[in-house]
Amino acid sequence: MTKPQDDRFMALALMLGRRGMGRVWPNPAVGCVIVKEGQIVGRGWTADGGRPHAETRALAQAGAAAAGATAYVTLEPCAHHGQTPPCSQALIGAGVARVVVATGDPDARVAGRGIAMLRDAGITVDCGVCEAEAQRDHAGFLLRTTQNRPFVTLKMAGTLDGRIATATGESQWITGPEARRNVHMHRARHDAVMVGAGTVRADDPSLTVRGLGISRQPVRVVVSRAMKIPATAQLAQTAHEVPVWLCHGAEADVTEWTTKGAQSLPCATASGQVDPRAVMQVLVAKGVTRVFCEGGGMLAASLLNAGLVDQLIVYSAGAAIGAEGTPMLAAMGVDRLASAPRFALDSVTPVGRDICHMWSRLPAV
Amino acid sequence: MTKPQDDRFMALALMLGRRGMGRVWPNPAVGCVIVKEGQIVGRGWTADGGRPHAETRALAQAGAAAAGATAYVTLEPCAHHGQTPPCSQALIGAGVARVVVATGDPDARVAGRGIAMLRDAGITVDCGVCEAEAQRDHAGFLLRTTQNRPFVTLKMAGTLDGRIATATGESQWITGPEARRNVHMHRARHDAVMVGAGTVRADDPSLTVRGLGISRQPVRVVVSRAMKIPATAQLAQTAHEVPVWLCHGAEADVTEWTTKGAQSLPCATASGQVDPRAVMQVLVAKGVTRVFCEGGGMLAASLLNAGLVDQLIVYSAGAAIGAEGTPMLAAMGVDRLASAPRFALDSVTPVGRDICHMWSRLPAV
Repeated sequence: MTKPQDDRFMALALMLGRRGMGRVWPNPAVGCVIVKEGQIVGRGWTADGGRPHAETRALAQAGAAAAGATAYVTLEPCAHHGQTPPCSQALIGAGVARVVVATGDPDARVAGRGIAMLRDAGITVDCGVCEAEAQRDHAGFLLRTTQNRPFVTLKMAGTLDGRIATATGESQWITGPEARRNVHMHRARHDAVMVGAGTVRADDPSLTVRGLGISRQPVRVVVSRAMKIPATAQLAQTAHEVPVWLCHGAEADVTEWTTKGAQSLPCATASGQVDPRAVMQVLVAKGVTRVFCEGGGMLAASLLNAGLVDQLIVYSAGAAIGAEGTPMLAAMGVDRLASAPRFALDSVTPVGRDICHMWSRLPAV
Repeated sequence: MTKPQDDRFMALALMLGRRGMGRVWPNPAVGCVIVKEGQIVGRGWTADGGRPHAETRALAQAGAAAAGATAYVTLEPCAHHGQTPPCSQALIGAGVARVVVATGDPDARVAGRGIAMLRDAGITVDCGVCEAEAQRDHAGFLLRTTQNRPFVTLKMAGTLDGRIATATGESQWITGPEARRNVHMHRARHDAVMVGAGTVRADDPSLTVRGLGISRQPVRVVVSRAMKIPATAQLAQTAHEVPVWLCHGAEADVTEWTTKGAQSLPCATASGQVDPRAVMQVLVAKGVTRVFCEGGGMLAASLLNAGLVDQLIVYSAGAAIGAEGTPMLAAMGVDRLASAPRFALDSVTPVGRDICHMWSRLPAV
């Protein structure tokens, strides 16, 4: 039976867990809080790279105080021996009296076994506290198991009329410095940042997180059937510093890029372009749980059309370019409104001189 | 010298004045509060149709209590004998001791004379309290005098990628019922609602304010060089009930529409379409101070290009249509970002399932 304070402590565990977003893949970004007699005696979250786990770190902090305490964990503790003993075993060994779990782990190696192990050891286990929030936070990890794909955020930044460049290709800058800095924060919370070939050719972006003092950069992914992009691009030039993965068609010649350190990930094609579902399968096989796609319009349209966008982050600048400008989204073949992809509003806020609106897939994940 | 409570009473006067927006043209929507010994003894705002004026109504409510009181007026009181004696004279006659004015009236018949009359009568006059807000509220009235055009609001409603219909022309409904109701509220606050011929042909709108219980409908304006619109349109069919004005090129044959009650207002043309500046001059000559333009993309682009848009109200739905959809704005010939019209954010808020963001011309009016 849950208790009145459970929501509060789990909310804290969720906040701690979020610190790992973009830094712990292929593992989930879990948070853990250990509470004894109303006092927090241990706090932990998945460490960079995925180990140690949140429970291990929180238990280490709690020490002897863990005996008889309650542990709040945002995801079912693992039950299998991997590189480290299972967290369920660690919680049992530390003598905790009760474990509160936000949501279950569908991974076949866990799938209720973590909870069963705890109960078998006489520990009280309560599940489902802050479950919706936890499922949202762990969506990338959960989708990998349930749908064999990562969580996908699509970012779009443009004018009020949905244009991302003028007819002459000028795009710097439509949004202001605050919005662009905001984008870096979102990049940092994802395992990989993804763009199409057109964006590399047009903008020559570096796609790194800058100005936020982070130590782990997201992987940079280029999706391009033919990979006809000069290796003078910033991405190629810096591939030895921060990983660059190329999701390309089988026939593409990527030697110029791979000699510079980029990794070739051939993908199936469909309708003349790289199949976005194949890209997601390749990425998930590499352990990626959260992808941040920054366009361009072709790749964005293909992800939307394939039903692969879980979250939209849109920056709208108070400017108008008109119909000759480059559209935010390429052709999608949407003839009827009923078939247009629809999203539910999560939040909207001013960011500098622009607005940022965030939307989630309908129906929710 | 202004006093600490002046801002508070003037803010109230501004709120009262706003009640007249869209209902008092060709007059300004003025508000007036009369305060005696800290008590409000009179409240008034310009009556429907523009008469009586706010001061007259507030003084009538105050009666004998006006003697020795302070009157807060959102616009300089009139000084000229029109259909009624000047308000400055009425304030003097009532024996008020002090008048606080938010902003001056640049109308040649007033232009400081209202204030001078009051001072000559020994009344203390303080100016400039809440001046920016007052200038914003009275922008339509002020622009008529200073620029010979009304205040123009451009409304756009579309998908996240700036589309207002699918390739097959389906547009009902992209935004939800709450956003559409919100549009009716904005219509009611303007003197005239304006659309281009394409919108009439595509949507056959009635452009009336519905569901809000208002007694005065805004004038409906159609801008079309050739007026090749069948008179079976709802606008033509209801022209005897709510005025329909046709801003058309000199060569257009509008007899079918005028026999149904629509009014012909020939306008100069430029670059093959009705010159938007000419439209504004024609409307201002008819007494219109506030225009609400609802598109379509051609008219919207021509207003933006002519620098005639003072306020933008954008409704964005959480949906995507892609590049084959009808764009919110037609071609504007904007090659360089530096020449794109820019707007400053006023507010952004969820409205039902959509968001509404409001922007003001840069630099501000």
